[in-house]
Amino acid sequence: MDDMQYKLDGRIWITLGDEKLLGHGRVELLERIQKTGSIRQAALQMKMSYKQAWDLIKHMNAKFKSPVVTSQRGGKGGGSALVTQSGQDLINQFHQLHLKFQQFLKDNSAIIQ
Amino acid sequence: MDDMQYKLDGRIWITLGDEKLLGHGRVELLERIQKTGSIRQAALQMKMSYKQAWDLIKHMNAKFKSPVVTSQRGGKGGGSALVTQSGQDLINQFHQLHLKFQQFLKDNSAIIQ
Repeated sequence: MDDMQYKLDGRIWITLGDEKLLGHGRVELLERIQKTGSIRQAALQMKMSYKQAWDLIKHMNAKFKSPVVTSQRGGKGGGSALVTQSGQDLINQFHQLHLKFQQFLKDNSAIIQ
Repeated sequence: MDDMQYKLDGRIWITLGDEKLLGHGRVELLERIQKTGSIRQAALQMKMSYKQAWDLIKHMNAKFKSPVVTSQRGGKGGGSALVTQSGQDLINQFHQLHLKFQQFLKDNSAIIQ
């Protein structure tokens, strides 16, 4: 127990009104879409259904100023999907906020005794 | 939609190792015990079972340097409970951290567009 310390931990996310728009899970979803070019693959990797993933994307596309993902439906492969520049900007922004937040947690962990 | 803004939101909590020790829920539990002098009443108000509340308290009492709640069992009323000075210090500390965190969220909400 001696080597263990009390620490501050937490999570952040972006809201619009009362709605959660973007947090770690959705950023991960966007990044997996970016890598695979496929909503279906990204959903599979995250153990969510295609419908769940698609609902999250529709929600973000509707609520952010520009769409975060564009997709082409088609064929048995389930079509292809692309993270837009606007989506990429949001991913970057979230990572920056996350870094600042990690620093905040670190700075304030020292207070706890 | 025009009056709505993107904001940063989040939660913080105190950990020891990988374990969550104190967050909003437990602070609320401690404060309700403080007000009512009763674990049973506090649990009722928070719609948790007495066992759930007692397990949370046992966990905190074991993991923080000093116990956060002392209790006397007895009678049909379920005995009485007291938040210790150490518990009070933790409540205050958490509120201070929460205020700083609210400021962090506010400062960084401006970045999001």
